[in-house]
Amino acid sequence: MDKYDLVVIGSGAAGLSAAIYAGRYRMKTLVIGKDFGGETSRAGKIENWPGIKSIDGYELMTAMKEHAKSLGAEVISGEVTGVSKEGECFKIVTAKKEFKTLNVLFAVGSERRRLGKPNEKELTGKGVHFCITCDGPVYGGKTIAVVGGGDASVKGINLAAEYAQKIYFLVMDKKIIAEPINYEHMLKLGNKVEILLETQVEEIVGKNSLEKIILNKEFNGSKDLVVDGLFVEIGAIPNVHLAKQLGVELDEKGFIKADNMMKTNIPGVFAAGDTVNLFGRFKQDITASAMGAVAATSAYEYYQLHAGKCS
Amino acid sequence: MDKYDLVVIGSGAAGLSAAIYAGRYRMKTLVIGKDFGGETSRAGKIENWPGIKSIDGYELMTAMKEHAKSLGAEVISGEVTGVSKEGECFKIVTAKKEFKTLNVLFAVGSERRRLGKPNEKELTGKGVHFCITCDGPVYGGKTIAVVGGGDASVKGINLAAEYAQKIYFLVMDKKIIAEPINYEHMLKLGNKVEILLETQVEEIVGKNSLEKIILNKEFNGSKDLVVDGLFVEIGAIPNVHLAKQLGVELDEKGFIKADNMMKTNIPGVFAAGDTVNLFGRFKQDITASAMGAVAATSAYEYYQLHAGKCS
Repeated sequence: MDKYDLVVIGSGAAGLSAAIYAGRYRMKTLVIGKDFGGETSRAGKIENWPGIKSIDGYELMTAMKEHAKSLGAEVISGEVTGVSKEGECFKIVTAKKEFKTLNVLFAVGSERRRLGKPNEKELTGKGVHFCITCDGPVYGGKTIAVVGGGDASVKGINLAAEYAQKIYFLVMDKKIIAEPINYEHMLKLGNKVEILLETQVEEIVGKNSLEKIILNKEFNGSKDLVVDGLFVEIGAIPNVHLAKQLGVELDEKGFIKADNMMKTNIPGVFAAGDTVNLFGRFKQDITASAMGAVAATSAYEYYQLHAGKCS
Repeated sequence: MDKYDLVVIGSGAAGLSAAIYAGRYRMKTLVIGKDFGGETSRAGKIENWPGIKSIDGYELMTAMKEHAKSLGAEVISGEVTGVSKEGECFKIVTAKKEFKTLNVLFAVGSERRRLGKPNEKELTGKGVHFCITCDGPVYGGKTIAVVGGGDASVKGINLAAEYAQKIYFLVMDKKIIAEPINYEHMLKLGNKVEILLETQVEEIVGKNSLEKIILNKEFNGSKDLVVDGLFVEIGAIPNVHLAKQLGVELDEKGFIKADNMMKTNIPGVFAAGDTVNLFGRFKQDITASAMGAVAATSAYEYYQLHAGKCS
């Protein structure tokens, strides 16, 4: 069975940055990614990676992968189906193969909750988005719709109001549940924000980019709503099922609980990126990368103290 | 007097990344830097910025500056000599000018303690270094000297031993004070590490790059010690004098105390980068940038709630 000093589960910004640092520390490192590049790869244009005005997310992730590989890390595609402790090692199981490792890093991200409509996946990054902080600025002077109803969506609208010309707030429920201060701020935006309660997106229409959405009920005499962008802000679900197999503690929101050095409650097990709540709702490539670098450094400390124990 | 939504003090990775995010949030943002690019600009080659295999530190900082400017931030050179609260604003004083701002971000970095020897500054990045984690890997198969005696230097040596062929550990005092586990690990490295107690660097010799160092006493019959790299690991002093003027709380190690969202004890005042201890001793461009992005986001929340109060 192939043995590693560190197996990173997840090949997004957190996992690949961890592999870069682990490679520099000369640890034998394997990255296993289900969807290469994680959410970033599917995000379309990235304009907030410091130092690069605009880059395609997939391209940024590819650059990180090449960087990690140049430092000796292996990056493979695969889905990890099981993680367990075996003596001093952890056993990592994929459909094709099993690996043993001294350290495990969960850089498994989270899934943005989706509407589950046709075209939603195909048009992601092409008019359909899941993060206003990330992609909002592209819509300067444009018309957008925001699906939500919770605090994150209201804060997103307050941010988007700085760019967008018109915002339709599609609230699924009867009321908006947000922090009062954020809610009041949104109300002050006046008719820039049109609030449509109990309104759902029935269809997402567009071929190569979003053309319009179709609502479950009429607004201004039509179910068709022509918008330049659709932002779905209905929360995220961290990917924690593997971590739970190992007994890793979760925080009160269901994310992996890690300290500032990205250590979990289990020695040799670390977590980084969107699956962790270190910076609250603020989940970006730059924070994921930083957490990955920190996690690799903590893994390296563990490795120095336990070298040879799983070999 | 010119008024801003955010004044960032410091133009290193933390400050410039904050300006990028603040610019995206459409805040009127000014960055004032004493030494453009902070420590990164002087670090020489950077090989651990995720996605870029190798880049000159100054070049990376210039890319971040251009990115921030493209989003509307102003970046100027100058030394802030005073910060005070004036009504709802903060007043920022430089030799040439005064500014008012709703938010202040301290991204002022820290100063690596230096030996204070001639040539030390001139050869920084050209054989003389202040961070093994950052620059150690360049010395694969080479001979280096590490000046220190504390835990950071011992951990640095344990790391450097993965790359370097020979390490001279120049301990200024009579003994090494480090965590036992790190100390023991170093001893296990055997004669790869030569420990020279009560030994100081008297001279740093080299024209365009380090050629040798001269010690205060003989070793193997000579005061001359030919090394490829000299690492000075004698700690860092965070730049906190301005923050102290405002009454910003410090932590037990003298760094600015900030929570995970980079908020200090004073509303509207944030801190990011090497002046903060969020990730302990691990202080890198990637962590500084992440903290800057988080700080800008927190400043933006404050701005949304207090817009117009300092205008």
